Amino acid sequence: MLSTMQDVPLLISRILTHGATVHGSSQVITWTGEPEPQRRSFAEIGARSAQLAHALRDTLGVRDDDRVATLMWNNADHVEAYFAVPSMGAVLHTLNLRLPAEQLVWIVNHAADRVIILSGSLIPLIAPLLPLLKTVEHLVVSGPGDRAPLAGATARVHEYEDLLAGRPTGYDWPELDERQAATMCYTSGTTGDPKGVVYSHRSIYLHSMQVNMAQSMGLTDRDTSLVVVPQFHVNAWGVPHATFMTGVNMLMPDRFLQPAPLAEMIERERPTHAAAVPTIWQGLLKELHTRPRDVASLAQVVIGGSACPPALMRAFDELGMRVVHAWGMTETSPVGTMARPPAHAVGTDEEFGYRVTQGRFPAGVQARLTGPGGERLPWDGRSAGELEVRGPWIARAYYNGPGAEPLCPDDKFSADGWLKTGDVGVISPDGFLTLTDRAKDVIKSGGEWISSVELENALMSHPEVAEAAVVAVPDDKWGERPLAAVVLKDGANAGFEALRAFLAEEAQIARWQLPERWTTVESVPKTSVGKFDKKALRKRYADGDLDVTRL
Amino acid sequence: MLSTMQDVPLLISRILTHGATVHGSSQVITWTGEPEPQRRSFAEIGARSAQLAHALRDTLGVRDDDRVATLMWNNADHVEAYFAVPSMGAVLHTLNLRLPAEQLVWIVNHAADRVIILSGSLIPLIAPLLPLLKTVEHLVVSGPGDRAPLAGATARVHEYEDLLAGRPTGYDWPELDERQAATMCYTSGTTGDPKGVVYSHRSIYLHSMQVNMAQSMGLTDRDTSLVVVPQFHVNAWGVPHATFMTGVNMLMPDRFLQPAPLAEMIERERPTHAAAVPTIWQGLLKELHTRPRDVASLAQVVIGGSACPPALMRAFDELGMRVVHAWGMTETSPVGTMARPPAHAVGTDEEFGYRVTQGRFPAGVQARLTGPGGERLPWDGRSAGELEVRGPWIARAYYNGPGAEPLCPDDKFSADGWLKTGDVGVISPDGFLTLTDRAKDVIKSGGEWISSVELENALMSHPEVAEAAVVAVPDDKWGERPLAAVVLKDGANAGFEALRAFLAEEAQIARWQLPERWTTVESVPKTSVGKFDKKALRKRYADGDLDVTRL
Repeated sequence: MLSTMQDVPLLISRILTHGATVHGSSQVITWTGEPEPQRRSFAEIGARSAQLAHALRDTLGVRDDDRVATLMWNNADHVEAYFAVPSMGAVLHTLNLRLPAEQLVWIVNHAADRVIILSGSLIPLIAPLLPLLKTVEHLVVSGPGDRAPLAGATARVHEYEDLLAGRPTGYDWPELDERQAATMCYTSGTTGDPKGVVYSHRSIYLHSMQVNMAQSMGLTDRDTSLVVVPQFHVNAWGVPHATFMTGVNMLMPDRFLQPAPLAEMIERERPTHAAAVPTIWQGLLKELHTRPRDVASLAQVVIGGSACPPALMRAFDELGMRVVHAWGMTETSPVGTMARPPAHAVGTDEEFGYRVTQGRFPAGVQARLTGPGGERLPWDGRSAGELEVRGPWIARAYYNGPGAEPLCPDDKFSADGWLKTGDVGVISPDGFLTLTDRAKDVIKSGGEWISSVELENALMSHPEVAEAAVVAVPDDKWGERPLAAVVLKDGANAGFEALRAFLAEEAQIARWQLPERWTTVESVPKTSVGKFDKKALRKRYADGDLDVTRL
Repeated sequence: MLSTMQDVPLLISRILTHGATVHGSSQVITWTGEPEPQRRSFAEIGARSAQLAHALRDTLGVRDDDRVATLMWNNADHVEAYFAVPSMGAVLHTLNLRLPAEQLVWIVNHAADRVIILSGSLIPLIAPLLPLLKTVEHLVVSGPGDRAPLAGATARVHEYEDLLAGRPTGYDWPELDERQAATMCYTSGTTGDPKGVVYSHRSIYLHSMQVNMAQSMGLTDRDTSLVVVPQFHVNAWGVPHATFMTGVNMLMPDRFLQPAPLAEMIERERPTHAAAVPTIWQGLLKELHTRPRDVASLAQVVIGGSACPPALMRAFDELGMRVVHAWGMTETSPVGTMARPPAHAVGTDEEFGYRVTQGRFPAGVQARLTGPGGERLPWDGRSAGELEVRGPWIARAYYNGPGAEPLCPDDKFSADGWLKTGDVGVISPDGFLTLTDRAKDVIKSGGEWISSVELENALMSHPEVAEAAVVAVPDDKWGERPLAAVVLKDGANAGFEALRAFLAEEAQIARWQLPERWTTVESVPKTSVGKFDKKALRKRYADGDLDVTRL
């Protein structure tokens, strides 16, 4: 039996129209490096989004499903592209301006982008790549920057403001299927080709409601959100869509992402909310120690992307800025969990323990843990398994890639359609997630998992160990066993036997998890972003380049 | 182009499972009249909902789409029915225990209810009606109350606790279509037969997210909600579903709805949130003046159903209880607007002016005003029209009635599928709604509308007028014109000319809106709920029973 409810699709055009009318006086404030930032009201954004859509349709010939890419900083023009492109029925593809050139080219060609809207200051980045972009017919340039390098381009070059000028400020947004593609974003995978995630109007709308729920980011029109997380990174964590839903002002740093201007914009514009990865906050903290500023307006600093060190969290607490941990991925839109302590822990000694977890699942995200043998593990806070998630804003496949139709389970998607996150961790009975390892870094020993991260942390707590990496190496009997690669401190003389005894006795590591294979190295090899390069270490072992002692 | 997002339906079973696991220790607290209330955790509610579903399916033979009715007070058992019945794929039909017997019979027969779950204390109400209920095969009795009157029933009688005992505490909830019927509720229309509104899993899920948004009720697991609004009234305004989504405790008054026990449960259980119609709060206020209690835990008191008098709002402010005005209807699930003042007005003289409006539209509710000639009116805070709304939790038809398939526009639904609310008002440029009249009470004069409520309020502000009603009467030239029926105070001697001059000069009523037809009456006829009975007054005019003076 069907309900008697209206069948109204959940569309981005609805979020835009709502923001531009009911919250028409809310603002997008863009940093310019000038004495005054640019201030543009939601009503103006609404009018200019309509103008942009007219220009894309009438002058550039953009049609349904055409991909319109952006290569832009966080600013008001970028917000207009966020709303205009999906609302008219096309697909917004946000390009990551930090990617290596060859990946950028690969992604533009894979997505078959017809148009790129780009910040003028990024012309030097894109100009040399233009001959390699097979599908791009139009370049639309926004904001300051020398246009000269585009002179020889075969794609037509347009000025953003010229395109908008004189167009109608209203647009009869089409009534789309809510499951239609709205935006897309590629993951910058460390292995293999980048993979495209395609968000729908439905997924973005639901995710925006989630972000605005009091138990999540809980934004209202009394807030101003400092959007440091790039708009090319998972829809800026959904903040631009969420803010238009409830009239939250947005403070956009454009290209001024250095600690000093960030500190200045916080002090001057007094945002109440911010979203960024930990490294940004590390830099800001250093800046604030050099030159103190009043940053206490930031009642809520959402940190995700990677785990926030507890020391950083405490340092911000002292400045009156409250860090809220979150976990998510490009494949999860991204809000998967948020670490708001449960009511009973607030104000108690337990509170901080909850805050350093990855957080709690909302109703829209189902979670399960899968053990090494494919078995489901309980939410007991102890059983570690690979996290799998399901929900209306979670990916079931990649664009024209793994998992795509017909449904093709692989290492990222289960046969019953859940996303395999590649993260290993535990879940408490009250739904708090604590991640410990990446699945590719756990050691699969005799049908059980050994956490390399746990062994590493235990080893590094030994007073004579400077650094330690633990990797899986093949073992005839157990499948895999741990190899410990240790960097000793200058003048240290701890032997492997002593370190192994330390693990067993001081760090309480179970006996079957203790490494038999040990080696010392000068330093642990690192990736370009400073993480342990375990692939390199495993290769050195396989190549016989390590001097391994068996205990 | 389709997205790569998972196609996960929005289901009530998901809300239940989430609440029963992630928020398993949150509680439903039911008042019992005993020294201690009944406390049942969300985990227990989850287990018992599964048991109830097994019983309904295996013992009572409930199948997809079967209607399972409840005739119950607000309590934990009723919450179990809320979740079990829709989650298993059947339809929960909440019966209004305040309805006249003949309407109750009509509704049960119209919905073709197969089962009624009822509170034992309501047996005296239902027992005499049983012979008239054509489709009811099973009665399930919950809680205290003499069972004797059910002795001769042809329907099978079950004890709620006996039915649940020993059943499995898990249930493999089916993956339903989110547009499927979940619950239904009849409007108790003052004219014509009651009309059934059928909510879907989708509409209830989205409405729950809306309720939990910070700009709406903003509930989190730190809250306890006192649910005074009956569960038979528009899903208790969506509170039970919303609370399971975020772990909010519920405080349920069961049949103890009198001011004294309400005051006691507030003082003892310290709820932070409450939802009820104004009359309940009027009574509570009187009780608190007689016997002061600490009720300041109630940071948010949502009042809807009818407008809250400003004086009541101020009286509660003084007690530390913050009233938040809301507007909605059975046809709108019900949250249509909530009166949270915009950021710029908070703490200013403007704030109270915003709080007494019906409130602001959320993104999920589109609104438009239609004038007397069918024209769209601007949101200028001045142009009054009939409010029409659209959105995913708003009705497009009635169950087997007006507007039902094939789409049949009538006086409740427009040709393009919007709900015509029957309310007349204005909308400000920032989306705040102020209602002035019911559409049937406005006077359609020469293609313009005259507000009867405005004329009545103006007349009643005259020192010699005790009461005044204004109704539309037929007019050859203008279509309709206002008739003013005035009750003068004892000893008053103001003439009609003087009253008309008062309207023009003191109350600033436009000249063309001033009534020509005047009459004095002993008293204004009233309906059973104390509202002006304008139908009766119009009939007396039509029958020539009034002594009318034309000015």
